[in-house]
Amino acid sequence: MSGNTFGTLFRITTWGESHGAAVGVVVDGCPAGLLLDESDIQEELDRRRPGQSNITTPRKEEDKAQILSGVFSGKTTGAPISILVRNKDVDSSKYEALRNTPRPGHADLTYEQKYGFRDWRGGGRSSARETIGRVAAGAIAKKILRINGIEVLGHVVELGGIRAKEANVEQIRSNTEKNPVRCADPEAALKMEAMIHAARSEGDSIGGIVEILCVGVPAGVGEPVFDKLNAQLAHGLMSIVAVKSVEIGIGAKCSLMKGSQMNDPIKMHDGKPGALTNNAGGILGGISNGEPIICRIAVKPTPSISKEQSTVDLAEMKDTRIKITGRHDPTIPPRIVPVAEAMVALVLVDMIMRGGFLKTSSLG
Amino acid sequence: MSGNTFGTLFRITTWGESHGAAVGVVVDGCPAGLLLDESDIQEELDRRRPGQSNITTPRKEEDKAQILSGVFSGKTTGAPISILVRNKDVDSSKYEALRNTPRPGHADLTYEQKYGFRDWRGGGRSSARETIGRVAAGAIAKKILRINGIEVLGHVVELGGIRAKEANVEQIRSNTEKNPVRCADPEAALKMEAMIHAARSEGDSIGGIVEILCVGVPAGVGEPVFDKLNAQLAHGLMSIVAVKSVEIGIGAKCSLMKGSQMNDPIKMHDGKPGALTNNAGGILGGISNGEPIICRIAVKPTPSISKEQSTVDLAEMKDTRIKITGRHDPTIPPRIVPVAEAMVALVLVDMIMRGGFLKTSSLG
Amino acid sequence: MSGNTFGTLFRITTWGESHGAAVGVVVDGCPAGLLLDESDIQEELDRRRPGQSNITTPRKEEDKAQILSGVFSGKTTGAPISILVRNKDVDSSKYEALRNTPRPGHADLTYEQKYGFRDWRGGGRSSARETIGRVAAGAIAKKILRINGIEVLGHVVELGGIRAKEANVEQIRSNTEKNPVRCADPEAALKMEAMIHAARSEGDSIGGIVEILCVGVPAGVGEPVFDKLNAQLAHGLMSIVAVKSVEIGIGAKCSLMKGSQMNDPIKMHDGKPGALTNNAGGILGGISNGEPIICRIAVKPTPSISKEQSTVDLAEMKDTRIKITGRHDPTIPPRIVPVAEAMVALVLVDMIMRGGFLKTSSLG
Amino acid sequence: MSGNTFGTLFRITTWGESHGAAVGVVVDGCPAGLLLDESDIQEELDRRRPGQSNITTPRKEEDKAQILSGVFSGKTTGAPISILVRNKDVDSSKYEALRNTPRPGHADLTYEQKYGFRDWRGGGRSSARETIGRVAAGAIAKKILRINGIEVLGHVVELGGIRAKEANVEQIRSNTEKNPVRCADPEAALKMEAMIHAARSEGDSIGGIVEILCVGVPAGVGEPVFDKLNAQLAHGLMSIVAVKSVEIGIGAKCSLMKGSQMNDPIKMHDGKPGALTNNAGGILGGISNGEPIICRIAVKPTPSISKEQSTVDLAEMKDTRIKITGRHDPTIPPRIVPVAEAMVALVLVDMIMRGGFLKTSSLG
Repeated sequence: MSGNTFGTLFRITTWGESHGAAVGVVVDGCPAGLLLDESDIQEELDRRRPGQSNITTPRKEEDKAQILSGVFSGKTTGAPISILVRNKDVDSSKYEALRNTPRPGHADLTYEQKYGFRDWRGGGRSSARETIGRVAAGAIAKKILRINGIEVLGHVVELGGIRAKEANVEQIRSNTEKNPVRCADPEAALKMEAMIHAARSEGDSIGGIVEILCVGVPAGVGEPVFDKLNAQLAHGLMSIVAVKSVEIGIGAKCSLMKGSQMNDPIKMHDGKPGALTNNAGGILGGISNGEPIICRIAVKPTPSISKEQSTVDLAEMKDTRIKITGRHDPTIPPRIVPVAEAMVALVLVDMIMRGGFLKTSSLG
Repeated sequence: MSGNTFGTLFRITTWGESHGAAVGVVVDGCPAGLLLDESDIQEELDRRRPGQSNITTPRKEEDKAQILSGVFSGKTTGAPISILVRNKDVDSSKYEALRNTPRPGHADLTYEQKYGFRDWRGGGRSSARETIGRVAAGAIAKKILRINGIEVLGHVVELGGIRAKEANVEQIRSNTEKNPVRCADPEAALKMEAMIHAARSEGDSIGGIVEILCVGVPAGVGEPVFDKLNAQLAHGLMSIVAVKSVEIGIGAKCSLMKGSQMNDPIKMHDGKPGALTNNAGGILGGISNGEPIICRIAVKPTPSISKEQSTVDLAEMKDTRIKITGRHDPTIPPRIVPVAEAMVALVLVDMIMRGGFLKTSSLG
Repeated sequence: MSGNTFGTLFRITTWGESHGAAVGVVVDGCPAGLLLDESDIQEELDRRRPGQSNITTPRKEEDKAQILSGVFSGKTTGAPISILVRNKDVDSSKYEALRNTPRPGHADLTYEQKYGFRDWRGGGRSSARETIGRVAAGAIAKKILRINGIEVLGHVVELGGIRAKEANVEQIRSNTEKNPVRCADPEAALKMEAMIHAARSEGDSIGGIVEILCVGVPAGVGEPVFDKLNAQLAHGLMSIVAVKSVEIGIGAKCSLMKGSQMNDPIKMHDGKPGALTNNAGGILGGISNGEPIICRIAVKPTPSISKEQSTVDLAEMKDTRIKITGRHDPTIPPRIVPVAEAMVALVLVDMIMRGGFLKTSSLG
Repeated sequence: MSGNTFGTLFRITTWGESHGAAVGVVVDGCPAGLLLDESDIQEELDRRRPGQSNITTPRKEEDKAQILSGVFSGKTTGAPISILVRNKDVDSSKYEALRNTPRPGHADLTYEQKYGFRDWRGGGRSSARETIGRVAAGAIAKKILRINGIEVLGHVVELGGIRAKEANVEQIRSNTEKNPVRCADPEAALKMEAMIHAARSEGDSIGGIVEILCVGVPAGVGEPVFDKLNAQLAHGLMSIVAVKSVEIGIGAKCSLMKGSQMNDPIKMHDGKPGALTNNAGGILGGISNGEPIICRIAVKPTPSISKEQSTVDLAEMKDTRIKITGRHDPTIPPRIVPVAEAMVALVLVDMIMRGGFLKTSSLG
């Protein structure tokens, strides 16, 4: 029980259902003196918000963030920061029909199995709308990281089988937000968009891969042996809806390499030891080594599709078929980018605080 | 700081260095009344122990487990169980030379960066020897799981690029422990062994992939939204040395699938809802659905290789070269199997307890 | 950092400042299926609310609870329950003058010392208004306890030196809420009221002692050696503003007793072992023994008094004098009763869940 | 379950039974670079050890501490520190008779009620011998505190009704360890000794009060609203066997005071705000204010007395009588002093680390 809190020193607790009154988050452990207002939160929520382009669900949500506590005279006080976002464009009528027919690929059945009954309106707590709290809290984490010289950059590297060309940090930084798929390779982005439209027209959906890059993380972050930085990142990223794998650095490809290929040679660089390559993804023995941190997540295709599917009728306990109408994204990766960035930022701030080397001198 | 504890209700704390006096674990939260003696622990330690075959390091460790507390009259009392394993075959002399030259692919440099200095004998705390505590604790977790009708089965599915044929539960159960690579496909196992010997003769090492299967887990295990079962598994598995990716179910391949392929159709089965396929790997929305739970980890090639490598001299802060001699496994996956099983078992027991449905009636 | 969460399995996170937009709490870990609506919360908030009688502050707060999540169709869903109470009768003007002059006996100076600056409006986060979140969450805890046959009863046993006669459970249950001081001894209650009025007329305030009794707690609750039931109760109760001591059972008087007087003789009672006396207060070795649990807290006199006091001017760093006007309770114990009950109820639910014996069968 | 861990960043896990093979503790989160060897631990264990004088149990334990991990080249490495103390002078034969007859005032019955059976040898896990782990860990905490300019001083202020004269820090520091009762008032100490001998000769035992003073704690330590410094101290102190009340500052006496008496006037002192009196005991709003921190605990008389007492026979479920022979302290306060100091030191280090202002620059 009670799995809605994340982090040790920088700790968030999210709450809220898709079609309830509101969703929100309480951020506890934010250092006092950080300049913060609602626009800081809003900026990230706007990146996550549906209805931004023709590749997302047409659900129209303003997702206006209200800060209810923890900020005074424009600065954080050290008290918990409560952020609330009202649910506006709620239409539960379409879900009425799904009340007794769990949607394949969704958590409808498992919530029913675990809790005995469920809020069936829009997926209830299991909806991706839950991630609003994560993104709102992540906005604060990102602001703290920026002050510490750390940047967290997410981008789509594969979608519907289309693979983006490798991009350097500069390209990721400048290209990603320029196309609706959030891909740093503009050509691949066009093909990905085409894939999305094709899938939608078939009443289907597609999956993809998102990479998150962290630049500027100092060496020494991570707490062996269980709270290794990679372990915490894996925990945070795998807790996002639709994520089925988490990789660090070269990731699963390491299985095909020899030690002599995998090991990153150590070389002096600017007067201190550095790595010539970064197969490790910036983490060795669970501790950051000063190189960029690289994470990759595989995101399954949206389970809500309009094609007819097999399911059961829970009231009558017999097989049946469903066709999901409602409003849905035909693909998740572009919208998961700010959520994944948020989780990575939350992990980093917490682990930097646990390591005892958060710079707070210039927070205000 | 303080990252050496894992779990909430069934909680373990490991300690110990490779060449220190001993390694060990304290298991807190084990229900009272479980029949337990040292042979239960020893059995799993023996599976992990080096020197079992010609594909592992020749370091000869008895790894004898002593239970120092928490057991009385052959049964657990509810008090913490302290398990100690003395380090015997310790030879630090080979490491003396590596004192100032961090080994590429190891945590030598990051420990130095984080803590300012390090126990350089055999990798100190960052050594894989640390996993003894996990395996010892996992042996208790597995015993509890068995009483609850749950089995955790690890096996090597890929090594040095050799992929095993798909195996069913029965094959995994009966074949895996019959060959030194712990592969359920006997033919592939032979090829894998050959790969290992080839790599060793080149002074190199190889990586691979391990799968862990959990059979008999009831529906309802997992605590959304952050302590989802998959998130906890990812945390536990990614915290093991050398693991670079964690997948659940179909894993990263989901990125290439359409929703209509990925979604597991729901069908009545034996009077209750079941899944026709198991792409989800037994977990939806972070909660188990009663199907087998499937995890896969990619394990990097052993970083200790005898080929010469680039590194730096920390005393003189200049580039240098090293050749690692010592005794090392040319590949990790076969030996990681019991460790991965242990971590999965520890997650399962803890999450089952958190969910409030551990059966303890027939512990004794 | 991040000290605003309490509990392990039944876990609450409170937030909000005295003169901010709102105060609230997120309750995580409440079992699914509990019948719950806002009136359950309101009932307890009304007991805590100011302005109920002429012995409390005239601040007029409706303290209307809104449940924003975690409840569907009148029942808890297992998702976190977010409760919000808007601050209404906020008048910060009186505090403007206290901005640089920390009030003696208050946390003004320590907040300034810890966080570098503070929300000076009405005490900000350090205000007793923070306890609204505790009482709201405690209302849920109490409801769960009632289903488990457990009752938590707080009452004032001493105020301004007036000591109430000893009362049995029946008297506490029926008399306490009949007088504004919440004393089970009606005669003492009258004298206490007189003391309050006298103190107020002098511009002063008085302290007192509150007892909390828990009836129906089964044997076996408490987790040695650090999370003993008494240790958790002490933690929870001492975290309430103005509490300066916590006692269990006979409490501090044990120091004057001999072992032969202190030890409660064990006797068969209704076919099982019981205690003839209850000096232990229902807890031995940190575990409940089935007897009523007895806690007592000493509550200091309200620090806000209208008498002139010495303090410093933080802007000019020199000595000065203040006279606190504003609206204040002349004594805290009567209003702390529901808060103390809430903390005890929260501890009990959490520890009962940790012990694995919460009855949830008849929650709905 | 799993209540044997204490602390968040500086975290200890204790284990072991009175008559088992050993007792011990794992200290996780100790900063790297602290000079530490076994004599640091031994010094504190020797203060706790039985058999030091004629007022303690004649059980002869060497209580030799072994450090098994986390220390290399005389310095802590940042890895967990495992400390082990073998049980030597174990004689379980006397307890055989008590197997089915729970001792009044002890945890025998509650352990039986909670766990279904118990290690009856010498009280098993519920024995005060469990505190060895606390004292060993506390020795490390104290060493860190000293480097941070903080001193923790415990002393007996009342025993068997004899009250010591008030003592200043200098007297406590120099007098306490000079008499076996650990009282800073030498005259009172003699009377207390006489009381102990009288009680023993009657086959009885006496209780008392211990005060713990912390000098040098900086302002700003403590994490509102639940992890206030006083709340953590209450938790830690109340978790010690035989403690029935915890007070901060003036403590329970505050109930008899007026606000104008209780409030400590604020005055400029050495250029910064200070307090003229210290009724608050160095903590306001849960945060240290820079004044000495004062805690007081009431300790019940030793429950093991040789006078005959009523109990039950658990095998036959009928009333019976027992006479406890064995070896017992006639009073606990003198021996609890180092334990209480340890708990206070552990809380302080952890909370200072959580607050982010541990000085580690001169650890080595």
